[in-house]
Amino acid sequence: MSDPTRVTAAVLIIGNEILSGRTKDANLAFLGTELNLLGIQLLEARVVADIEVEIIDALDACRAKYDYVFTTGGIGPTHDDITSACVAKAFGQKLIRHPEAERILRERMTQMGVEATEARLKMAETPEFAELVDNPVSGAPGFRVENVYVMAGIPRIMQAMFEGAKPHLKRGVILLSVTVGSFVPEGQIATELSLLQDAYPDMDIGSYPFFFDGKPGSNLVLRGPDQARLDEAAGRLGDLIRNLGQEPVEGGVEVPKSAD
Amino acid sequence: MSDPTRVTAAVLIIGNEILSGRTKDANLAFLGTELNLLGIQLLEARVVADIEVEIIDALDACRAKYDYVFTTGGIGPTHDDITSACVAKAFGQKLIRHPEAERILRERMTQMGVEATEARLKMAETPEFAELVDNPVSGAPGFRVENVYVMAGIPRIMQAMFEGAKPHLKRGVILLSVTVGSFVPEGQIATELSLLQDAYPDMDIGSYPFFFDGKPGSNLVLRGPDQARLDEAAGRLGDLIRNLGQEPVEGGVEVPKSAD
Repeated sequence: MSDPTRVTAAVLIIGNEILSGRTKDANLAFLGTELNLLGIQLLEARVVADIEVEIIDALDACRAKYDYVFTTGGIGPTHDDITSACVAKAFGQKLIRHPEAERILRERMTQMGVEATEARLKMAETPEFAELVDNPVSGAPGFRVENVYVMAGIPRIMQAMFEGAKPHLKRGVILLSVTVGSFVPEGQIATELSLLQDAYPDMDIGSYPFFFDGKPGSNLVLRGPDQARLDEAAGRLGDLIRNLGQEPVEGGVEVPKSAD
Repeated sequence: MSDPTRVTAAVLIIGNEILSGRTKDANLAFLGTELNLLGIQLLEARVVADIEVEIIDALDACRAKYDYVFTTGGIGPTHDDITSACVAKAFGQKLIRHPEAERILRERMTQMGVEATEARLKMAETPEFAELVDNPVSGAPGFRVENVYVMAGIPRIMQAMFEGAKPHLKRGVILLSVTVGSFVPEGQIATELSLLQDAYPDMDIGSYPFFFDGKPGSNLVLRGPDQARLDEAAGRLGDLIRNLGQEPVEGGVEVPKSAD
């Protein structure tokens, strides 16, 4: 990571329910979008089961490789919530009942009129040198250890925690994007597109085919740090599309989800 | 993998668009559900960018560890479609234009009245010892090399390819599941649930909290190979819920997506 403008991240989604198909993950797309707005490039995501060795291996691989790791899931009160213990092990820290987290939880439980069970207080457990991440939705905080942010799996709680973490994150250069769509199918524009990519190595050009209104087409996404360069490349792309007898659509052709 | 009844898999989702948040992945939940029905346990998923070294590293890690790897994405005609080349490299095979794939593609292009561009014929490229996987939706086939199945990213095409692959997959013991829901919040039942898990080590007990109709509750999912054992454990769980003054709901409490 010698380039100071480049900040990278991985997301680690923890939970059997995502792998069994029971629950559709909604956190990855949210984090990808949000991190991008901060100039943090999400380069990898992993989904692992509630198995200690798997969680620790994935954590260790990702925290060594990326500037940040964001985990979701496995921090509730039940026996299958083992994320906090795994993070403690990965960092070689003791798992403690965090005094401030306990205070927050007990206050919340008093407010809600629920009993402070041992299980509920398990949600105050963190690695010994963790820093709490506020949870305005349901009380039980997330936490950070070094470059790893540990967040809930429930989307609205995860999102609230991420809001709390945001001000503390190092930001890099923001990748902007311009989308140009048309009813030119990928196979017809691929060669020119590849030449355009070669001419603009400072951006990533992605091609996303669709079939809509009885016709094939593609949305072409240019991503890079420099708006003027993106606009210039998008202009050339528009010309290519017109040369192929179609009209470019700025922002891309909007297609129903099922046709994407 | 000494247990012959245990067959495992990983899913490798390839594409910048999933990590940037532009596209919401729909393939993981489908594959998790389908593999489960075949007795194949999906134990890990990874999402990687369109970067050669990342794709190859993830492929190598997963194909060594699991019985099967299913990849989605990156097999189209454009420059950012590099999955086939990466699979060839990972297996140390040459990337060839597969004669049968080329025949299928040319036939399809003639039918569709589109030109057989070099870009389109790129979709006939596979590692030299690949076996094709039929694509009844749009022609361009997927393929298999050893224990790796390479499929499209577009869900309806991926699903059709998976249908074609299915008859060839080795099957293991199918994990059945029973869900018992109630308006008992997790924190109130967690201790008993943990004891129940200890009493039934042959199944996985998962707990999924929700907040619905102004009240917290949880859906408890028991997963294991033996229906009678699951029913027995579910019966005990029902008793625990009744002891806490709530009524167990067989099949789980149905909650709107946003409350899950």
